Amino acid sequence: MLMNDARLFARMKEQKLDAIVATMPENVTYASGFWAMSQWIRRGPQAYVLIPAEGRGDSVVMGSTGLVDLLADDAVWVKDVRRYGNFVVDRTPEAKLDAWDSRIEALMARDPDPDAVSCLVHAIKDRGLDGARIGVDEIGILPQYWDKLADALPNATLVRAADVFRYARAIKTAEEVARLRRSAQIADRSIQAALAVAREGATEMDLARAFHNTTINEGGMPVLGCIGFGARSAMTNVQPSEYKLRKGEVIRFDVGGRYGHYRADIARNGVLGEPSKKLAQYHRAICVGLDRAIEMIRPGVRACDVFEASVEAVRREGLPHYRRSHVGHGIGLDGYDAPDIAPSNTAVFEEGMVICVETPYYEMGFAGLQVEDTLVVTKDGTESFMLSGTQLKIV
Amino acid sequence: MLMNDARLFARMKEQKLDAIVATMPENVTYASGFWAMSQWIRRGPQAYVLIPAEGRGDSVVMGSTGLVDLLADDAVWVKDVRRYGNFVVDRTPEAKLDAWDSRIEALMARDPDPDAVSCLVHAIKDRGLDGARIGVDEIGILPQYWDKLADALPNATLVRAADVFRYARAIKTAEEVARLRRSAQIADRSIQAALAVAREGATEMDLARAFHNTTINEGGMPVLGCIGFGARSAMTNVQPSEYKLRKGEVIRFDVGGRYGHYRADIARNGVLGEPSKKLAQYHRAICVGLDRAIEMIRPGVRACDVFEASVEAVRREGLPHYRRSHVGHGIGLDGYDAPDIAPSNTAVFEEGMVICVETPYYEMGFAGLQVEDTLVVTKDGTESFMLSGTQLKIV
Repeated sequence: MLMNDARLFARMKEQKLDAIVATMPENVTYASGFWAMSQWIRRGPQAYVLIPAEGRGDSVVMGSTGLVDLLADDAVWVKDVRRYGNFVVDRTPEAKLDAWDSRIEALMARDPDPDAVSCLVHAIKDRGLDGARIGVDEIGILPQYWDKLADALPNATLVRAADVFRYARAIKTAEEVARLRRSAQIADRSIQAALAVAREGATEMDLARAFHNTTINEGGMPVLGCIGFGARSAMTNVQPSEYKLRKGEVIRFDVGGRYGHYRADIARNGVLGEPSKKLAQYHRAICVGLDRAIEMIRPGVRACDVFEASVEAVRREGLPHYRRSHVGHGIGLDGYDAPDIAPSNTAVFEEGMVICVETPYYEMGFAGLQVEDTLVVTKDGTESFMLSGTQLKIV
Repeated sequence: MLMNDARLFARMKEQKLDAIVATMPENVTYASGFWAMSQWIRRGPQAYVLIPAEGRGDSVVMGSTGLVDLLADDAVWVKDVRRYGNFVVDRTPEAKLDAWDSRIEALMARDPDPDAVSCLVHAIKDRGLDGARIGVDEIGILPQYWDKLADALPNATLVRAADVFRYARAIKTAEEVARLRRSAQIADRSIQAALAVAREGATEMDLARAFHNTTINEGGMPVLGCIGFGARSAMTNVQPSEYKLRKGEVIRFDVGGRYGHYRADIARNGVLGEPSKKLAQYHRAICVGLDRAIEMIRPGVRACDVFEASVEAVRREGLPHYRRSHVGHGIGLDGYDAPDIAPSNTAVFEEGMVICVETPYYEMGFAGLQVEDTLVVTKDGTESFMLSGTQLKIV
């Protein structure tokens, strides 16, 4: 199971929610294991999970009939599975069906609800929650569907609740940690594959192809691929181009795909030939800042304190004008989970958080330098997911 | 320019909108050329384009300062570019800046608005629209931001307007047609590459890797990769597994990535060795149904009539029990643009629509068969984007 149900239930109790409804793709997958493909690759398709408060009944997962095979996938751990709308799947009476097909057939045998909102209303009524206080993740439900839901449940109180899921997601379950480790390591190996094709005259696109192909071959799916050379690397979101690598130029990677739906986001730098003194000094400074952050992170330490110490370390080590808005963030199904390692965030680290720690530096006309590690917070410190070190890779 | 401004303005006039605001990533890119990366790969980050009605002033594009390099990209054709929030980009006084860096610097020189909604309110007031009737694409803006916007503009009337963009997007500009053609052709070549590794004992994952790697190498990004063998291919959204191909089994592809942000969605079938009589007959039937649809499509023909004729042709040709909810849909930045080729859709085809036409058939315990072509509607018919034919590929 992906969901940290204890943490979700605790927050629901604090907020006096009788039930909560997941609507954005990340939260639907999180709360049920259902990967609602059309919702992940488009905006608008609706899939929901209704989660009654602890002891108030079982969850219900809902999707369109066009996704019936994914609803019947054994990765879905919620037992009450419902569908809405029509979609034709045939069979002959003599067909031999395997276990998966039989689950599809069982779902098809029940009449669907006509649309997504009716399906959700039906589930809410079945759980006796039509007069309840219900938190609804406001990010995935279309506003007109929210209105219809409110109209159909005049005795219920609907409150926005995406933040409740974000809170729950911040502390990962064992399965989430395993997927995030693998996702980070796929990205790390993909960087090594890209560096292996770096030579004078190689293009950013050459490295991007090597990067993404390795992600695919390792079982991931490409998402983020900022790869830039020289002064272009100073662009925060640099997209690979036909620009050719020249001696002395830096290579910046800020990259990561998905594995088992979980994101990676890591950063490394290479350089073609010997780095200039400035480049070596600045890069060493950001690495020291990263190390300083990582050595401080443990349960009970405040995010803002880690931020201050990390930025201070970068400044002291040779980048005296270093400024940053944050030096990291959580990661999970979403690329930015809680917590942010930012000056205003007084929240503390907790065991089971998975964090991207980063100390990027962007200087126009010069270079972008960035190291970003991913790690899990343990009982008394952290455990890194990284396979490679942060040192500037001389190619 | 991607946007069909004449069509957008005409619809705005019909709906008496003084301005419209793009908020979902597809519409932001469509209305400005701005690829708001964080918004494309996550749910929640905000980017907007304000488009006053024809003759009421120039558009304004808005994004977070963390995306300033993408806001300054010369793919962005909107001239009034604004940013919100803080993000540090350094420079030394002596730095030599290229044209792109200079555009970044110019954007950084102006103070940002504190947040996304203030930025949008500021732009609306600058255009004298704070008492206007404004259509807001309701899909990308967070509901709490909609509320803040309404509070900040007490004299304005805000109406939901995602459908206005969907209407405009249905007829493609020349640049969109070019990107969609390339996107479809990348998918087509990727299928050929996947079929080239199909042999007895090859896995669905082997074919998926070949498929996605080719998409990457051709300049695309993977999105949709439903590839299944034998009875597994009957699952509508089959995800590649370690299942091994056996003699006589069908291979179904329902696939397509993105190129230049534009989607592909095509389908083909292969078979290992000679197909059974049933397989050959059913496959021929769906191909005839596809051909029938394509031969009917031209400006002025109703979508529902194409649907009826296509389904009828499949039935007549040897699949007498064939039923479907639709036999195609538009495609663009979104995987499902207007129109749907569905029984209830009386809308007519128009020149410049880009359409995926498909006649899938899913039979549990047997196979999924699916052919799907992409084409553009011309003055007097259609022009196909496909490189390969629909025939069952014997491998």
